[in-house]
Amino acid sequence: MREIYFDNAATSPVRAEVVEIMSRFHWEVFGNPSSLHQPGQRAKRALEDARSAVADVIGADPKEIFFTSGGTESNNLAVRGVAHAMAGRGQHIITSSIEHHSVLNVCHALEKEGFEVTYLPVDRSGVVDLVALQERIRTDTILVSIMSANNEVGTVQPLSQVSTMIRARGIVLHTDACQAIGKMPVSVRYLGVDLLSLTAHKFYGPKGQGALYVKKGTRITPLLQGGHQERLLRPGTENLAGIAGLAAAIRLASEALPAESIRIGALRDRLERGVLSRIDDVSMNGHRDLRVCNIANMSFGDLEAETLLLVLDMHGISVGCSSFTTTLN
Amino acid sequence: MREIYFDNAATSPVRAEVVEIMSRFHWEVFGNPSSLHQPGQRAKRALEDARSAVADVIGADPKEIFFTSGGTESNNLAVRGVAHAMAGRGQHIITSSIEHHSVLNVCHALEKEGFEVTYLPVDRSGVVDLVALQERIRTDTILVSIMSANNEVGTVQPLSQVSTMIRARGIVLHTDACQAIGKMPVSVRYLGVDLLSLTAHKFYGPKGQGALYVKKGTRITPLLQGGHQERLLRPGTENLAGIAGLAAAIRLASEALPAESIRIGALRDRLERGVLSRIDDVSMNGHRDLRVCNIANMSFGDLEAETLLLVLDMHGISVGCSSFTTTLN
Repeated sequence: MREIYFDNAATSPVRAEVVEIMSRFHWEVFGNPSSLHQPGQRAKRALEDARSAVADVIGADPKEIFFTSGGTESNNLAVRGVAHAMAGRGQHIITSSIEHHSVLNVCHALEKEGFEVTYLPVDRSGVVDLVALQERIRTDTILVSIMSANNEVGTVQPLSQVSTMIRARGIVLHTDACQAIGKMPVSVRYLGVDLLSLTAHKFYGPKGQGALYVKKGTRITPLLQGGHQERLLRPGTENLAGIAGLAAAIRLASEALPAESIRIGALRDRLERGVLSRIDDVSMNGHRDLRVCNIANMSFGDLEAETLLLVLDMHGISVGCSSFTTTLN
Repeated sequence: MREIYFDNAATSPVRAEVVEIMSRFHWEVFGNPSSLHQPGQRAKRALEDARSAVADVIGADPKEIFFTSGGTESNNLAVRGVAHAMAGRGQHIITSSIEHHSVLNVCHALEKEGFEVTYLPVDRSGVVDLVALQERIRTDTILVSIMSANNEVGTVQPLSQVSTMIRARGIVLHTDACQAIGKMPVSVRYLGVDLLSLTAHKFYGPKGQGALYVKKGTRITPLLQGGHQERLLRPGTENLAGIAGLAAAIRLASEALPAESIRIGALRDRLERGVLSRIDDVSMNGHRDLRVCNIANMSFGDLEAETLLLVLDMHGISVGCSSFTTTLN
């Protein structure tokens, strides 16, 4: 049976070129970047090359890139790290109701520690309510965390507007860009964010490898204690193969973006048109225009998403299961 | 120039068979184990196979193995996770003065949170003082963390004796076994430990992939918040290639151990004899017998370790730099 994998927003295979690059690091450049000898220093140089490559793609300085074990760790480090570092100034955080669990569940944990969290509503197309944001900003608000693009409906959030609204008030802005990298242009300067999370396995890179952009001067507390790696923000021997894989994958994704976003967007539109013309009682969820190129989210009457997922799976078609319409209600 | 890499205790290259297995997971079994469709379920089965393989080697139940991003995260999760989970029963922790920074620095951080930590002294050969341990146990002691084998001198600690001393008192025992796996037989039942940290890149597996053994019934709080992976103890999409690589590497290391420990031990002894017979004013550090097969730690008169490291490096010989004698003073 032919298999059709429609679930790249959950995870993607790794590009052949990236696998090849990673293999080299398992074999040849295998030193510990903390070691002073030549094998260590070769590893250290490769680490810094990878850091520069990631920084280049998102318009950051290499010193602002910190490698982590993935999107979940990046989001945890960003939200908890800033909350703890700035708790003396205030204990109010604003996020949206449709963030990934690695943001929402950190916020729930912080609430138990005494922080207050406002969960902004979104409209029917998944766009965060900016009027609500304006109203909920307080003098003790220290952090706003809004995703760049939603993982279930693909809606792109008005981040630069959010940045403009909060910039003058000294509030830190974090964005979970795990679904945005490789799907839309992402520039930390244009978005006006102070922290940005990304993870390689969403753009044909390896699982278990992420990064966090932290704008110079941002106050942040590490999650882990240990050695001196990543300028004390993230200890542990660096996953050099994974880091080189992430760097290669983000560079390739960035180069391919202009052509790929058109190609994938056209495939998605064709799929949606085909479904709409052949099946009754279908609704398309999310914003029609403000969305990344690779996500189509549809409801089929009263059919449960999980039931449909299993039926499609029996036909060799892999799709993701969305809880988004539940979130909206 | 011929290169001689003598720093495998810092990090090792990855075995060819392991690299090959990992490549398969980047390409073929690339699904997200949390996905309900076939690609996801294939990944899930591979994940559970890897968990069983790791459990088999250390004599644990697969349900007691949790995958992490490496030794630093495993140590942080063990020490902080148990401390936070058991803080209601007591706030005293015992460790040794020669633990890895990922244990010592977590202890320092916990002291700032109000925990009390006792750092046990070691004798000149690096063995933890068991008389001191006996004296320092208190009714509010909740956790003892002692490494299996030291990373600088290779001294093996009397863990089963430690276990016998504390078992009846309901104190949790953690061991950092990062330097022990593949160098000596490691069985969680024989050692009598409740938690055990390990990391793949010390035994010819990939960097960025570790595991934590947590004995059934041990109370532990997660470090990260997010999805439901690893039975809620460690969220984030699993690094399946890394996990499969760790599983393959630990199985291979375990199979090779009887022959390799003899071969490597003989090489080490030959090196030590050669140095002793040719150079004056050399002293061998660590315990002569109670040590892992792969570590030789020597002092050369008043020569600074870092100076010697750089001179050897100019001759293509890579060694690690030890601060152990400083620790002893």
